[in-house]
Amino acid sequence: MAPNAPRIVALLSGPDQKGLVSKVSSWIFENGGNIIHADQHHDPEAGVFFQRVEWAVEGERTAEEDAKAFYAFGDSIGMKTHVAISGCNPKVALMVSKADHCFHDLILRWKAGDFPCEIALIISNHETLKEASENYGIPFAYIPVARETKSEAEAQQLALLKQNNIELVIMARYMQVLSPIFLDTIGKPVINIHHSFLPAFAGAKPYHQAHKRGVKLIGATAHYATADLDQGPIIHQAVANITHRNTVRDLIRKGRDMEKLTLATAVSRHLENRILVYENKTVVFD
Amino acid sequence: MAPNAPRIVALLSGPDQKGLVSKVSSWIFENGGNIIHADQHHDPEAGVFFQRVEWAVEGERTAEEDAKAFYAFGDSIGMKTHVAISGCNPKVALMVSKADHCFHDLILRWKAGDFPCEIALIISNHETLKEASENYGIPFAYIPVARETKSEAEAQQLALLKQNNIELVIMARYMQVLSPIFLDTIGKPVINIHHSFLPAFAGAKPYHQAHKRGVKLIGATAHYATADLDQGPIIHQAVANITHRNTVRDLIRKGRDMEKLTLATAVSRHLENRILVYENKTVVFD
Amino acid sequence: MAPNAPRIVALLSGPDQKGLVSKVSSWIFENGGNIIHADQHHDPEAGVFFQRVEWAVEGERTAEEDAKAFYAFGDSIGMKTHVAISGCNPKVALMVSKADHCFHDLILRWKAGDFPCEIALIISNHETLKEASENYGIPFAYIPVARETKSEAEAQQLALLKQNNIELVIMARYMQVLSPIFLDTIGKPVINIHHSFLPAFAGAKPYHQAHKRGVKLIGATAHYATADLDQGPIIHQAVANITHRNTVRDLIRKGRDMEKLTLATAVSRHLENRILVYENKTVVFD
Amino acid sequence: MAPNAPRIVALLSGPDQKGLVSKVSSWIFENGGNIIHADQHHDPEAGVFFQRVEWAVEGERTAEEDAKAFYAFGDSIGMKTHVAISGCNPKVALMVSKADHCFHDLILRWKAGDFPCEIALIISNHETLKEASENYGIPFAYIPVARETKSEAEAQQLALLKQNNIELVIMARYMQVLSPIFLDTIGKPVINIHHSFLPAFAGAKPYHQAHKRGVKLIGATAHYATADLDQGPIIHQAVANITHRNTVRDLIRKGRDMEKLTLATAVSRHLENRILVYENKTVVFD
Repeated sequence: MAPNAPRIVALLSGPDQKGLVSKVSSWIFENGGNIIHADQHHDPEAGVFFQRVEWAVEGERTAEEDAKAFYAFGDSIGMKTHVAISGCNPKVALMVSKADHCFHDLILRWKAGDFPCEIALIISNHETLKEASENYGIPFAYIPVARETKSEAEAQQLALLKQNNIELVIMARYMQVLSPIFLDTIGKPVINIHHSFLPAFAGAKPYHQAHKRGVKLIGATAHYATADLDQGPIIHQAVANITHRNTVRDLIRKGRDMEKLTLATAVSRHLENRILVYENKTVVFD
Repeated sequence: MAPNAPRIVALLSGPDQKGLVSKVSSWIFENGGNIIHADQHHDPEAGVFFQRVEWAVEGERTAEEDAKAFYAFGDSIGMKTHVAISGCNPKVALMVSKADHCFHDLILRWKAGDFPCEIALIISNHETLKEASENYGIPFAYIPVARETKSEAEAQQLALLKQNNIELVIMARYMQVLSPIFLDTIGKPVINIHHSFLPAFAGAKPYHQAHKRGVKLIGATAHYATADLDQGPIIHQAVANITHRNTVRDLIRKGRDMEKLTLATAVSRHLENRILVYENKTVVFD
Repeated sequence: MAPNAPRIVALLSGPDQKGLVSKVSSWIFENGGNIIHADQHHDPEAGVFFQRVEWAVEGERTAEEDAKAFYAFGDSIGMKTHVAISGCNPKVALMVSKADHCFHDLILRWKAGDFPCEIALIISNHETLKEASENYGIPFAYIPVARETKSEAEAQQLALLKQNNIELVIMARYMQVLSPIFLDTIGKPVINIHHSFLPAFAGAKPYHQAHKRGVKLIGATAHYATADLDQGPIIHQAVANITHRNTVRDLIRKGRDMEKLTLATAVSRHLENRILVYENKTVVFD
Repeated sequence: MAPNAPRIVALLSGPDQKGLVSKVSSWIFENGGNIIHADQHHDPEAGVFFQRVEWAVEGERTAEEDAKAFYAFGDSIGMKTHVAISGCNPKVALMVSKADHCFHDLILRWKAGDFPCEIALIISNHETLKEASENYGIPFAYIPVARETKSEAEAQQLALLKQNNIELVIMARYMQVLSPIFLDTIGKPVINIHHSFLPAFAGAKPYHQAHKRGVKLIGATAHYATADLDQGPIIHQAVANITHRNTVRDLIRKGRDMEKLTLATAVSRHLENRILVYENKTVVFD
């Protein structure tokens, strides 16, 4: 195997039918590709087939030509197809407020080479993280949000995201609810981190809710944001044990580590093209 | 320290006041006791103090005399007090239906010496576990429950529990809801295992609910049963990771291990007199 | 898909070569099979390819004919091949001493339908679990082992295993070291549970070693037994947190749950034909 | 309770004797203190008693006077005593090389208010993290280490630590072994993070060792550095699951999160005066 050959990751989904695995792998083989990983799933209830396949492009075509040909092939077998070429790092924007733990965590992981992307923009409704963003060398857009100016602020945000060719938005503890209009309009995935094990404690102040109920573990949930608040497809969840000794402040502090890890895991899975969404759930190939 | 001296565990709770730790430890010291463990907690918001203290009775009095004197002392400092003498194993009843995993697990742990109690009675609304109970040498009472006979059945259950001097009831996947009347009347703690991370997925068929929502972890919650279904004070919780591959059947199977461990942990903590309840929450001293 | 079609699981391993995934899936498709799961792995350093593929037999041949044909196909592409037909439950023997936690756990899981096998024989060097075995309806062979009679005892064990067509031996806390001769002769896999996170604390009394060293977690390791004591290929490992409060007795008690879960997981993976061994390591397809 | 009263934490250890808990709590009560937390442990084998007690100073003396008086009291009952006053943040030095994950993690936690200390100095054998240190506003000392200059370099390090009144040294993935002479001379605690679950894989390249052995989990261990490499008292350990798919590079990446969390937990416990060392083990009060 040529170690430096470009790689393609394809995600397919569609109605289950006999022979799909064979058809896909044969196509790749016949086109000179070498399969590195392949994973599939079928949901017998829904009758849907899902596949993630990654291959080294070793034929005569370029990766771009191969990708284009694979799209056509996907159509021909009735599969919805998404193809990504390794090295084409998508542009990502972070939306933040004042809390900085997920902000630093994501940027440091990116700088350490963990995320195949380019963090190209920070948008915030506060100026708190302006200097830190600039120290990291990332453009920072301060767009304040008040109740009466929210729709204008969102219009500004959308314009900025479009202008910067942003392919993924990460709400890294952004403390504003994005409106259904924003989420319907944006046309790109938005990943949010909610600080509870959803569906428990949706909405505001989940650590306060958890403390009041006297639960023995707290959680964090990374999900795609949809027009229904905290109801979008769940990507990853984690929990940590707590005891009667822990105050709300302790939960907030303990929660930070969970939030960082959970959001980073979800972002990583997304950027590696491991996630397919259907029926408000996710298939996450590992 | 006399290794075979009888031991006393006292649980105290009441309005916080300066010097409580000192008063309690001085009382024990002056009465010839030797403190083995002591743990305390105070809730600054509620202004309540909690203590668990365990000591070896090495003075001239018997453990029973010491216990009686300590109750009087507890009263004198305004504390609600519960005292248990080691070796006085309380009688416990299991309520079961058809599922046998928690049933076997609890009995085998008890037989292995993990639980300081006597499992004295099995009550079931099915005959499924009759033979297994008898093989273990534990009396089995079959009390069928139908909608129209439920109150009579509960009256029978209550009579049986009283007659057998049962100090703790464990709902080991008993698939009937105990009525508020039963729970108000029984006068003894009832521990239930619910197969979700409460407050998520309360009520019926939590694994089905979890599968439908597409969560990435499932849970189990052991709590004291109260008149509000699945709303009682939580004792212990645990979770396990799941993926898109897992069917409802997989969740049920995976869940069994969590249910066993979570219920066993809660029962153990209760029998070791580690739990205090207040404001629908628990203090669990470890 | 025919829901009641028999299923075949094939495990393949051999020198990596381009197009293997395609060849295997095409063979299955062309022979009327419907792939349910397929997973593969290649070790780029060793240049070895591994695959597990499970399919529903929906062509005109029986599962037995299909299996036979697949063996021939595996040979033709230079792969070492193992094929299992669903429903053909292999016979399993447990080797036990006095400790009964893994013994009960494995048998109860099997009776609950978790293990596709038949637990056909218990072998022990003590009579402790004779009655319990018989209550479960499983033949119990008491073969005492003393230093001077060990080789005779092992000869007896081997004869019994062969005579009963045992396909898998599980050392469920069997407290004798099996000799290299036994392990070289048996010709069937032997799974052992060691009560530490190997390679730490190999050999005797691992909980005592762990307590002495003052570690903050204890572990359990399920592995295939080989002639090198505690050095065989690791299948599964788990750990639990401990504190300075825990005595050796506590570690032993806490460890039981880990041992049960770890061994049960390893046995399950093995019986579902998910494990391939190479270079003293395992590939465990999940 | 006066919410802004200064607090004292005392750690005591010494030969077990009847009435210690009572004596300590009575002293605090009689001196006007209000116990916030108290935890104790006794090792029956070693016959040693350990206590951590935290109280609000509400009498007429200052915290400094109270602390001094408590030292005298500790002496009078034969206990080795350590007393810390809240708000007196000790100075801490980080020793680093090129890897920056623990470096950023510790500093960001400190800046977030998680650590009651002052990170006053970074010492490194490389210049890699010079700029980052300066951005954080922390003095950076570059002291290169070569085999032949090691003792001089260590002398320089020791001088610098002394000169800056450093009370705790944290080896945040410092890739040089500190000599026994250094560790015997320094007279202050040194916390190290080792990237394996010790005692497994002590020494160099633990992730390579783990990969070679085929373990199913990797670990991290924070311990006090002693003259015996990787043999010092263990403070905290954590593990993460790995599979056959993970390369050494994956282990290194996965390991970073464990290393960060494990080291941060150990540092936090140390700075909160929760740790007592005896017989090469730790008592860690939580």
